Amino acid sequence: MSSYDSHPSNEEKPGWKGYVEWEKYPEKKDAAHNILIRKKFSPIPEFQFVPLPKTNPILIGHRWKEYHQALGIGSIVDYSWEVVQKEKPDLIHVLDFPYNGETTRQQLMMGKLTDNKYHFVRNHGGVPDIDPDVYELEIGGLVKTPAKISLKDLMDPAKFPQVEATVTLQCSGTRRLEQIIQYPGDGDELINAPWGEGAIGTAVYRGVPLKKVLKYACGGVLPECGHLEFIGADTYFKKNNVYNYAVSVPWRKVRQNEEVILAWEMNGKPLPKIHGAPLRLVVTGYIGARSCKWVYRINALQEPSMGPVQSQEYLYYTSQIGKQNAKYSNGFSIQQMPVSSAIITPEDKQVIIHDGKVTLTGWAYSGGGNWVERVEVSPDGGSVWYAVDPDDLTEKHYHAWRLWKIDVPVDAEGWLEFCVRTWDSSNNTEPTFVRSAWNWDLHVTSSCHRIKLYSVNRSRPATAARLLELEAKGVEFDPLTRPLEFSLEPTESYFSAVRKHPREPRN
Amino acid sequence: MSSYDSHPSNEEKPGWKGYVEWEKYPEKKDAAHNILIRKKFSPIPEFQFVPLPKTNPILIGHRWKEYHQALGIGSIVDYSWEVVQKEKPDLIHVLDFPYNGETTRQQLMMGKLTDNKYHFVRNHGGVPDIDPDVYELEIGGLVKTPAKISLKDLMDPAKFPQVEATVTLQCSGTRRLEQIIQYPGDGDELINAPWGEGAIGTAVYRGVPLKKVLKYACGGVLPECGHLEFIGADTYFKKNNVYNYAVSVPWRKVRQNEEVILAWEMNGKPLPKIHGAPLRLVVTGYIGARSCKWVYRINALQEPSMGPVQSQEYLYYTSQIGKQNAKYSNGFSIQQMPVSSAIITPEDKQVIIHDGKVTLTGWAYSGGGNWVERVEVSPDGGSVWYAVDPDDLTEKHYHAWRLWKIDVPVDAEGWLEFCVRTWDSSNNTEPTFVRSAWNWDLHVTSSCHRIKLYSVNRSRPATAARLLELEAKGVEFDPLTRPLEFSLEPTESYFSAVRKHPREPRN
Repeated sequence: MSSYDSHPSNEEKPGWKGYVEWEKYPEKKDAAHNILIRKKFSPIPEFQFVPLPKTNPILIGHRWKEYHQALGIGSIVDYSWEVVQKEKPDLIHVLDFPYNGETTRQQLMMGKLTDNKYHFVRNHGGVPDIDPDVYELEIGGLVKTPAKISLKDLMDPAKFPQVEATVTLQCSGTRRLEQIIQYPGDGDELINAPWGEGAIGTAVYRGVPLKKVLKYACGGVLPECGHLEFIGADTYFKKNNVYNYAVSVPWRKVRQNEEVILAWEMNGKPLPKIHGAPLRLVVTGYIGARSCKWVYRINALQEPSMGPVQSQEYLYYTSQIGKQNAKYSNGFSIQQMPVSSAIITPEDKQVIIHDGKVTLTGWAYSGGGNWVERVEVSPDGGSVWYAVDPDDLTEKHYHAWRLWKIDVPVDAEGWLEFCVRTWDSSNNTEPTFVRSAWNWDLHVTSSCHRIKLYSVNRSRPATAARLLELEAKGVEFDPLTRPLEFSLEPTESYFSAVRKHPREPRN
Repeated sequence: MSSYDSHPSNEEKPGWKGYVEWEKYPEKKDAAHNILIRKKFSPIPEFQFVPLPKTNPILIGHRWKEYHQALGIGSIVDYSWEVVQKEKPDLIHVLDFPYNGETTRQQLMMGKLTDNKYHFVRNHGGVPDIDPDVYELEIGGLVKTPAKISLKDLMDPAKFPQVEATVTLQCSGTRRLEQIIQYPGDGDELINAPWGEGAIGTAVYRGVPLKKVLKYACGGVLPECGHLEFIGADTYFKKNNVYNYAVSVPWRKVRQNEEVILAWEMNGKPLPKIHGAPLRLVVTGYIGARSCKWVYRINALQEPSMGPVQSQEYLYYTSQIGKQNAKYSNGFSIQQMPVSSAIITPEDKQVIIHDGKVTLTGWAYSGGGNWVERVEVSPDGGSVWYAVDPDDLTEKHYHAWRLWKIDVPVDAEGWLEFCVRTWDSSNNTEPTFVRSAWNWDLHVTSSCHRIKLYSVNRSRPATAARLLELEAKGVEFDPLTRPLEFSLEPTESYFSAVRKHPREPRN
């Protein structure tokens, strides 16, 4: 029995648990607004000017939970967490509700395809529980013939041609932490998750191109149709108003067939609930937010969706825009993702004991119709670059990342700054510093990912001797900051050195 | 009654409470060593890879206290804290024992001279309580005639000519935090305090030049004398050995008269206990550590002191030296301080609402015989520089800092990086980035001090309008990350903008 069974009132339609229809009922939205403006909700936690909690979940979505509770749909909160426990027990729970789960380093590098259990999740609302047998997709707006299609019909290859596509989905907030640490930004009402490098993942999705569905089920779109709006069964909030999740992509994108898929299968398995079961959009090369989960209605529109997620969020501002002057129209809408990459191993601030070569691994990706051509790593903060051997990159796909591995020659010792940059099939590459990419809403950290490593080069005699001394004494080198308890130098050696090169000039 | 009165056993000589003589008694040192190697002491706290505690005291010197307790001289710990409470109640207690206290921003900028109550303290051991009436200074080694001089004689102007000098003393660890945050380093046994910008201060000291004392009391030094070693009454520990505090400066420095003073007065008042009463050295232009407190013996030596503070610490390593290869002889000895400066107001990460000019204040200093000639501030991270007007610098002294103030024209909004650099009388200036100055022992953070400010320029109409809107709603701009609860833009304005400049190309 799930949380929904104890609150059957949440069913909009039989078998659609946790789905509340808002967009069709303006009076219901108004009533909800009147409830919300009268309540006091927990403030958004401050996590940018202070270090992140070391807890897991890292952040707790008190406010978002309270919104649901205020409207009597608190069971959505409980059910969502039940799904997390079942489908994503091993992720880093960056935000517990709405659920934002990050893939760990080890999980990221397991292979070209991310296991469903480990694929990151960035939800904007709670998880509904929709019975596939009663599920239907409604299509309306600027189409020749509005239609309702059951999942069974949609999955019937005789009715709609199916495709499989290897697709990387990425939250536009991937690597946001790098921006936050240097320059805090918008503390959005729905927490802009402080992601590390793991808000990205790749899967093979099976479904039908939306274009084919529009054609075969609706007779095509009308000439005025410019955008397809996707409505999800999750409930969304913005400034005391309530919505169903809504985003849109241009018709021009949908026309690219396998670039906008209605998918029910992920890596050969049924789509997990947390990823949008029974049906979701998969939009290649776009920010993950456009790949609407639990989609139940598609509207063909002339202009982009006016849903807040489309028109008021995921905006990319110039660096002089902020709290003092940000509007919805003075940032451009983030649809396609640029080229970017990340070093996954080693981790920032690790000590690396090596013999003249340091091994790095990571991912590289480009959206917007481009793929990764070359990955380069710099061991000196961005001056000298070493290219990854093509043999050490995973297979090239039109719409997916490539994992990479490189052994970088390193002579120098002490703290070194490594960074990675990627060149895509349109010859785009990444800006060198995070400052170049910073923007008020902290999206798209496309600058070179950089880490600091403490290099200990065992091929140097003095270092080899110190390491042997440590070994003989049974002392670990790590942690770096733990002082050595033995003398660093015998007195004779000290005198011989400072008498040869005296501390003060002789004259 | 002080802690010492309940433990009279700590008196080495009557009236010298808390002073234990180690250097004269090798067997006593050996016995102490045998006690220390048998005990387990608390580990040094890890404060570099993790954020500093928000407590005051920030760090607790458990290990150093335990060393004292193990040798039966725990009353030194208690008495020292009593002195802190009395003489330095208002400092930032960076480390409680041995006491390291930092001057606050407000206290730093009070004027050219730092009030005794607010002057920073960096002690290496506990505070002794020496009766001035029984105090005597012993001088030996490579002098014509060894001597013992009472404080009364030393203060007799008929016997020794007195001087007053305005002197800035600075811990070589000033601004160490900037190094730690970017690249952790040596976690020394005696905690290398994570100082901010306040381990510096200026006072007028009265005393007698050491040169004159050597001349009139000892008939001068022998020709072989190259260095003067100062022994302090505080107890010091290093790798399970116990010492009296010992450092040295070259005879060549001492010859400069007022550059090495034996001082008993600070800003016209008796030297506070925590600053070395009854007598201390004041060495101009050198790191504070050479200005030995509670000095009771001076040895004229051929070579620098072999005391660990002189020969094994305060070493400046090249950036490839670290835990893997550091020795005592492969870093140079830090004696003279370079040119450096700091922005004291505003603070890092503050929001500044202004009308096109931002006011900054701070200090600038150069040691090693140089003084400050020019201070420059950059509002763009180090590309364009504005010089401080000479009228806005405090008076020039040979051995002291200058406080400065500047209004920098600022048009840009959002996060800006301000930094300061100073030019001294030898035309030295500061490296631009902390990475250029980083060294394993985290000394001498001489790189341009930089802060990030969030600039809100009220002279821009859009910003002025937003600020008025906030004011009308009674909402503060700060904290920056708190989301605005009202809509950022009316729908009409949004449509008018996105229809003029559509989200997608028209064709």
